[in-house]
Amino acid sequence: MPLIVTGSIGIDTIHAPTGTAERVLGGSAAYFAAAASFHAPVRLVAAAGGDWPDAHRQVLEGLSNVALDGLEIRSASQTFAWGGRYFDNMNQRETLFTELGVLDEEGPAIPATFRDSEFVFLANTHPVEQTRLLGEFPNRRLAVADTMDLWINIAHTELLGLLEQVDGVVLNDEEAEQLTEESNAVTAGRRILEMGPTFAIIKKGEHGCILVHRDGLATLPAFPAESHQVVDPTGAGDSFAGGMMGHLAATGVSDFESIQSALAWGTITASFAIESFSLDRLTRLTRQEIDERMTSFRVAARVG
Amino acid sequence: MPLIVTGSIGIDTIHAPTGTAERVLGGSAAYFAAAASFHAPVRLVAAAGGDWPDAHRQVLEGLSNVALDGLEIRSASQTFAWGGRYFDNMNQRETLFTELGVLDEEGPAIPATFRDSEFVFLANTHPVEQTRLLGEFPNRRLAVADTMDLWINIAHTELLGLLEQVDGVVLNDEEAEQLTEESNAVTAGRRILEMGPTFAIIKKGEHGCILVHRDGLATLPAFPAESHQVVDPTGAGDSFAGGMMGHLAATGVSDFESIQSALAWGTITASFAIESFSLDRLTRLTRQEIDERMTSFRVAARVG
Repeated sequence: MPLIVTGSIGIDTIHAPTGTAERVLGGSAAYFAAAASFHAPVRLVAAAGGDWPDAHRQVLEGLSNVALDGLEIRSASQTFAWGGRYFDNMNQRETLFTELGVLDEEGPAIPATFRDSEFVFLANTHPVEQTRLLGEFPNRRLAVADTMDLWINIAHTELLGLLEQVDGVVLNDEEAEQLTEESNAVTAGRRILEMGPTFAIIKKGEHGCILVHRDGLATLPAFPAESHQVVDPTGAGDSFAGGMMGHLAATGVSDFESIQSALAWGTITASFAIESFSLDRLTRLTRQEIDERMTSFRVAARVG
Repeated sequence: MPLIVTGSIGIDTIHAPTGTAERVLGGSAAYFAAAASFHAPVRLVAAAGGDWPDAHRQVLEGLSNVALDGLEIRSASQTFAWGGRYFDNMNQRETLFTELGVLDEEGPAIPATFRDSEFVFLANTHPVEQTRLLGEFPNRRLAVADTMDLWINIAHTELLGLLEQVDGVVLNDEEAEQLTEESNAVTAGRRILEMGPTFAIIKKGEHGCILVHRDGLATLPAFPAESHQVVDPTGAGDSFAGGMMGHLAATGVSDFESIQSALAWGTITASFAIESFSLDRLTRLTRQEIDERMTSFRVAARVG
């Protein structure tokens, strides 16, 4: 089933205890597409500016399962740029700078050949823009949106409008608490379902994730990575979403049990993304490595 | 296989967003024994003072699978008393007061009939006392110790001495980091194995636990409780340990896979303990309820 992601292309500058990466390829659409491409063909919709490095374009062009027809280069604009610093435990970060660039302009156009997309992932952006994008996919069978604290704060009503129209939402535990004023992740998930979606996936970083679905409840630990395996957590959430949606698009099914299975594929795919800066690990990754790690994960996460 | 716990009897005063409980039955040995008793017969070794309420004694006497021959009442002493306050999210607490009472005296004697215990759980106390207690069980097949930040700080050498002698250690993620200076739980676990034990269980509260064992690695989420199910987290760790050790004692096996299974039984048993103040929920609990919740947990925590 055709899978599409709408999101950002970013130029990331990362400071972490493991090192520094200056102006490397990032952005939600880039991470998502690379991660999803191991599971299913994926269509990318995003905009970049005239400053977008050729080397970054070559990385995306090197992803064999990613259609770039929706990649819009605006030569007079700047690419979205983000700088962040991770602290010792890699669980907390601060934003050093954000230059919106093209993200502050009109959103990208959807190529006519992408309009039949059935599995739709709306990566984090203004909920009004997400709602517009959603309307571009009349054949959608499963639409999932990401969001962030900024929109919960400054575009709350618009976000609620979006939540009425999507099937699922992906957000982290702090965002879920902010949206629902409930610190318990399961209870927060129930509140979100009252806002419209059929399911909510609450991400807890190194502690895994929880799926609250009208038809059931699932909980999954993260892949138990050791400290030397965690180089840069940037893009972990988008890689998780990519692996998850890629699995769903590959199977063509999206009931509770399929989404529960997809969480594990998302978890494993994301566990590779954080092993390097930028998309470096994802571009060197093979499907066999994913399958092998999934086998280890099934053993480690077996319920007695 | 005979299971024994050495630990504390406490008189707890709890302030939580869910209410207040004044001078209720608590203590590591009480929670552990109640939790373990659903899985296997358990022997309790602990001391209480002359102020210990009859009502508390009656609760322990009402536990059909718990042998109280090792319960020592010291009429001239005070029972250990602890007061704590939980904050809104139930994950953080502050200690309001600690009156050591009998815990500041010589440790309890081990009845001769308990010396053949094979599964031994040394609940949290001074590591020198834990080491002495360990020596009382020449037939031990599996000895597991709990510890806490206090001993890591003020009795570090003695704790290392204990770790060389036990098979396993149970501690929370903050304590594991404090002991090893490693914030990554898996890596912290590996460091602990270098100190002697065959396995380390790192508890993460509402985020589950991780087992680092010489023969493998396991990760398990917590039971996904909703906010209304969490009344008082006091004793969750001891109830987890009780359910886990009870399962191991019942099966008589303690290899990696058995411990991994035992984590789930500990998780489920503890998920009931937090549904009330004191041992109230555990004393009303049935084995059938445990089995039913385990069935739900297997569904919720299934890896896709």
